[in-house]
Amino acid sequence: MSRVYNFSAGPAVLPEEVLKECAEEMMDYKGCGMSVMEMSHRSKVYDEIIKEAEKDLRDLMNIPDNYKVIFVQGGASLVFAGVPMNLMKKGKAAYIITGQWAKKAAAEAEKYGEVVRVASSADKTFSYIPDCSDLDIPEDADYVYICENNTIYGTKFWKLPNTKGKELVSDVSSCFLSEPMDVTKYGMVYAGAQKNIGPAGLVVAIIREDLIRDDVLPGTPTICKYKTQADAASLYNTPNCYAIYICGKVFRWLKKQGGLSAMREYNVQKAKLLYDFLDESRLFRGTVRKEDRSIMNAPFVTGDKDLDAQFVKEAAAAGFVNLKGHRSVGGMRASMYNAMPMEGVDALTDYMKEFEAKHHV
Amino acid sequence: MSRVYNFSAGPAVLPEEVLKECAEEMMDYKGCGMSVMEMSHRSKVYDEIIKEAEKDLRDLMNIPDNYKVIFVQGGASLVFAGVPMNLMKKGKAAYIITGQWAKKAAAEAEKYGEVVRVASSADKTFSYIPDCSDLDIPEDADYVYICENNTIYGTKFWKLPNTKGKELVSDVSSCFLSEPMDVTKYGMVYAGAQKNIGPAGLVVAIIREDLIRDDVLPGTPTICKYKTQADAASLYNTPNCYAIYICGKVFRWLKKQGGLSAMREYNVQKAKLLYDFLDESRLFRGTVRKEDRSIMNAPFVTGDKDLDAQFVKEAAAAGFVNLKGHRSVGGMRASMYNAMPMEGVDALTDYMKEFEAKHHV
Repeated sequence: MSRVYNFSAGPAVLPEEVLKECAEEMMDYKGCGMSVMEMSHRSKVYDEIIKEAEKDLRDLMNIPDNYKVIFVQGGASLVFAGVPMNLMKKGKAAYIITGQWAKKAAAEAEKYGEVVRVASSADKTFSYIPDCSDLDIPEDADYVYICENNTIYGTKFWKLPNTKGKELVSDVSSCFLSEPMDVTKYGMVYAGAQKNIGPAGLVVAIIREDLIRDDVLPGTPTICKYKTQADAASLYNTPNCYAIYICGKVFRWLKKQGGLSAMREYNVQKAKLLYDFLDESRLFRGTVRKEDRSIMNAPFVTGDKDLDAQFVKEAAAAGFVNLKGHRSVGGMRASMYNAMPMEGVDALTDYMKEFEAKHHV
Repeated sequence: MSRVYNFSAGPAVLPEEVLKECAEEMMDYKGCGMSVMEMSHRSKVYDEIIKEAEKDLRDLMNIPDNYKVIFVQGGASLVFAGVPMNLMKKGKAAYIITGQWAKKAAAEAEKYGEVVRVASSADKTFSYIPDCSDLDIPEDADYVYICENNTIYGTKFWKLPNTKGKELVSDVSSCFLSEPMDVTKYGMVYAGAQKNIGPAGLVVAIIREDLIRDDVLPGTPTICKYKTQADAASLYNTPNCYAIYICGKVFRWLKKQGGLSAMREYNVQKAKLLYDFLDESRLFRGTVRKEDRSIMNAPFVTGDKDLDAQFVKEAAAAGFVNLKGHRSVGGMRASMYNAMPMEGVDALTDYMKEFEAKHHV
C-alpha cells in the first residue's frame, strides 16, 4: 500500500488512522458480528454511534443547547433549497455572492421568494471577499446567506458580514472544523461532510431552535423540514449511517489532535508554508487577494496554461494528486483540509521549488 | 471475527465477499493511493466505478435503453416526494395502500395534487395484497403508485395491478434484484439501497425517458428533478460515492451468483424452508395470507407476546439477530435478502424447532 498526497477539493483526504479503523471494523463492529453498514439505524449499537458523534461535535464546537444538530442527505444542493423553504417567512432574503455555490444557492432560493443580491465579487472572478460592513440589507429580509469559505476560488470571510440584525445562514462546507467558530453568531450553519469530516452523501446542519418551525412553505417535502429531522434526532428515515459513523471517528480524531484551536494553529502553519512560497516564487503566484485567502483551498497559477498543465501532470506522477484547478479559475488548487499532514504541504512546496528551478526563465 | 446471522429488515446483511474487498481497498483503491471515500467524484477512477455499476445493473435487469438509471440521495422519503413533483401533470394520481410506506407516499403526494386511494389492505393490518385486477382508476390520473414488497408486513405483489393504461410507479426497495423483473411494465421503479444492495443513503431509480421532463411542478428543488440527475449521469452534485461503489460490488457479486434468475431460485428455496416450517409448526405461525407472502420478509408470531419477546432475546444470544417484528405488527420478522445464506435460514428453522420443542404445550 502506498498512499499519495491528495489535494482534492472534495471528496478529500481523510485521516489514515480513521480509515484503518474502518477497515478493521468492516466485518465485525466491536464484537456485534456485523458491519456498521449492515446494522439497523434503530439498533442500540447504532444509537450509540450517532449519539456519540453528535456529542463529540458539540464538544468540539461548543454548540449551545439551544442549537439542534441534524445529519441530513442530499448535499448542499438540497440544503440550500431547504433554507428558504424553512426560513423565508416574509418572502425575502439577502445573498452575498462570493462564488458558484452562493450563486447557485441564490438561484435556488428564487424559486421560493425574493432574493436580493446585496454584494458580489463576480467582477474579479470571485478572487476577493467584498466589504460587508455596511450593506443595504432589506428591512424585511428573513436572513442573510453566505458561503463562508469558497472552495473553488480560495477565499474566506475572515470577518462575518454585518447582517443588521438579520439571521446569518452560512455554508461552511470547506472550512468546517478547521478552526473554532462562534456558533451563536449564526442562525444556521451547515457543511457537506466530504471536505473536512467524512465521505460524501452527508450534510451536518446546526440550527438555532427558534428557527425550527412547523410553518414551512407549502410544498416542502417532509424530509426537508428541519423540524422533521430535529424532532426525530436525524432518524426520521434511514440516514447515511456509514458516513455518520466515519464523521464520528473524525470528530474523535480531532479531539485527540487537541480540538479546534490546535487545528487552527496547524492549518495556519500549513497554509503559511504554501502562501509564503507563492509570495516569493518567481514562477507561481496565488490568485486571491491576500487578506481574503482561505487556509483550506489555495488556487495558484504560473500564468502559462501549458506550464500549468505540465505541472499538474508531473506533480501527479510524483505523488501530489488532484492539483488541477477548477475549470472556472484554471491553473492549480491545493486543498489542505484537516487530514492533510504538514509533511504533505512541505513536500509539495519543495516539489514546486524544483519545478520552478527547472522552468523559470 | 465472528459474524452473526443478521435478519435485519434494513440496513441489512451484505455479502461477506463484498465487505472483505471494501476492507482491503480502504487505504488504497487499486493502486491509486487513496480510499474511494477520498476521491473526487469527477476523477477518472471514480467515473469508472459509477459507470461500471450502472452497466452491471443494466445487464442484471435487462434495462432497456429508453430507461435512465439515476443514483440519488434522501431515501425513499425524498424520492416519493419527487414522484408527484415530476410526474403529476394533470394533478391527480392513484395510490394502492398496502402498508406504511405506500401510506406515507400517498400522504406526501397530497401536498402536490389530488391523491385517490384506489385500494387498501388496512382492514386486516396489511396482511394481504388487495385484488387489483379491476380498480376504479381515475381517467385523468397521471400514474398508479404501489409499494411492491412491503417490508413491515411481509407481503408482495405477485401480480402487478391493472393500471388501465396509466403509468405504474413502484417502490421496490425490499425486493430489488431478488428476482428478475420486467422493467418495461413500469414508468418508474426505485429502491433504497439499504435492503438488498448496499449501505443506507442511496436510492437507485429507473425511469422511462419520456417521463423525464423539464416542466416539473413549481418549487421542485433542482436536485429533485429527474432531468437534473439524468442529464448529469447522477453527478450534478457529489453523490453518495462510497455507497455507489459498494452497490457496484454487490451487482458484480450477483452476476457471479448467476444473475437474477439464479437469485430467484435461491431466494424461493430459502423462503420455502422458513414458510414450510411455519405452516407445520404448532407454536409459530406466519401472519400473511399465503399467496401474498414475500420471499424477502417473513413476519411470524407465537400468539403469546411474552413468548415472542423471549424468543427474540434467546435467538439473539444464539447468533440470530434482529428478529424483532416491527412495532405495528409485533412478534418476529425474518428478512432474508440476497446476502442471507441458505445456512442462515436453515439454522434459524432448526433453532425455532428446538424452541418449539421446549415451549409448545
